[in-house]
Amino acid sequence: MSSLAPRLAVYLVADPDLARVDLPLAVHQALDGGCTAVQLRAKHLTDRAMLTLARNIREMCRAYKTLFVVNDRLDIALACGADGVHLGVDDLPVADARRVGQQAGRPDLIIGYSPETDEQAAIAASEGVDYLGVGPVFGTASKPDAGEAIGLETLRRRAAKTTIPVIGIGGIETRNAASVIGAGAVGVAVVGAILRTDDPRNAARTLVETVSSAEAQRW
Amino acid sequence: MSSLAPRLAVYLVADPDLARVDLPLAVHQALDGGCTAVQLRAKHLTDRAMLTLARNIREMCRAYKTLFVVNDRLDIALACGADGVHLGVDDLPVADARRVGQQAGRPDLIIGYSPETDEQAAIAASEGVDYLGVGPVFGTASKPDAGEAIGLETLRRRAAKTTIPVIGIGGIETRNAASVIGAGAVGVAVVGAILRTDDPRNAARTLVETVSSAEAQRW
Repeated sequence: MSSLAPRLAVYLVADPDLARVDLPLAVHQALDGGCTAVQLRAKHLTDRAMLTLARNIREMCRAYKTLFVVNDRLDIALACGADGVHLGVDDLPVADARRVGQQAGRPDLIIGYSPETDEQAAIAASEGVDYLGVGPVFGTASKPDAGEAIGLETLRRRAAKTTIPVIGIGGIETRNAASVIGAGAVGVAVVGAILRTDDPRNAARTLVETVSSAEAQRW
Repeated sequence: MSSLAPRLAVYLVADPDLARVDLPLAVHQALDGGCTAVQLRAKHLTDRAMLTLARNIREMCRAYKTLFVVNDRLDIALACGADGVHLGVDDLPVADARRVGQQAGRPDLIIGYSPETDEQAAIAASEGVDYLGVGPVFGTASKPDAGEAIGLETLRRRAAKTTIPVIGIGGIETRNAASVIGAGAVGVAVVGAILRTDDPRNAARTLVETVSSAEAQRW
């Protein structure tokens, strides 16, 4: 198992469209609660505003020694010095992102990828992907275009078919997080379960404990 | 005057949303007609589709030794090996784009910038901008969010206040292109004047001749 895996345990997708309050405040609370990774997903900001927000979250994550990745945008990731970038099937191809990252002096750039089929999941390792986001595991209200839930069995199948760490995403909350780990994921990506609560710190803490217990039971 | 200036004489903004026919075909015809620069502007494609289109146009521009820049997206520009990137006030800041470009082994990357005020135009040179796009000079139907026309006098004032080459953009056609050069621009950026004609090759050729005559008259 990759040494990246423990850093993916509780992965907050920080989306300003879904934050109840100030996003950096909620991220700060989640970091304080022990969340292990943050992804900035900002589909409706200008690039300049996204970069400013990315730098802000980047600094907080650095202070907490927490992984920070930028969704979709390699240029923003490189400009703010993120640890990585997360790509989907409609984004820059992984090979191109890897090459530009290497050219930019970032051979260490972590590249996450969201496959949409078993085949895409299976070949991701050969493309140099560092981790996979697989979902939507359950129905989700946080991403209207996410498609139909794939369920735990599909998650289990995709996780079994690859050698790289998999996190589950989509409709994951405290009550179902253990089942995602049970299906072979090393972590859970959450949006609303942290952002749309009154207490992001406590929500993160509870998720960390839940994932940790579920991991322990798996071995 | 920069050696870049002659390459900016007739600058086609290639926007798939505005092409009457197949965009690569229209770009090819415009290149054949002598257009000196092409910018890919694609606000509504996926990143993956934009990269594919960028590579296609990049190859054509290379064959014609024509400048090729990508609008807004530094990552796409670097991934396809474009000559440059064109940024606006809401995009990645020029200094960040320059730094990432240098890190990526592209110190030669041409950075264009569209200022919105006289002050932004005046300080662009100190930020390392290679050329400015100033406009909308006239009213335009090609960019609904372009704002009110600034007119030839504002173009003249902004061009006079900077040492870097300026191209005019916005509502420029064969009939008014000479006035844009007369106001101090080294070139004209056009969209509809080439893309929305029945004969992009001839439209480009006529614009090249018009700009060339106007340049000759200025000296």
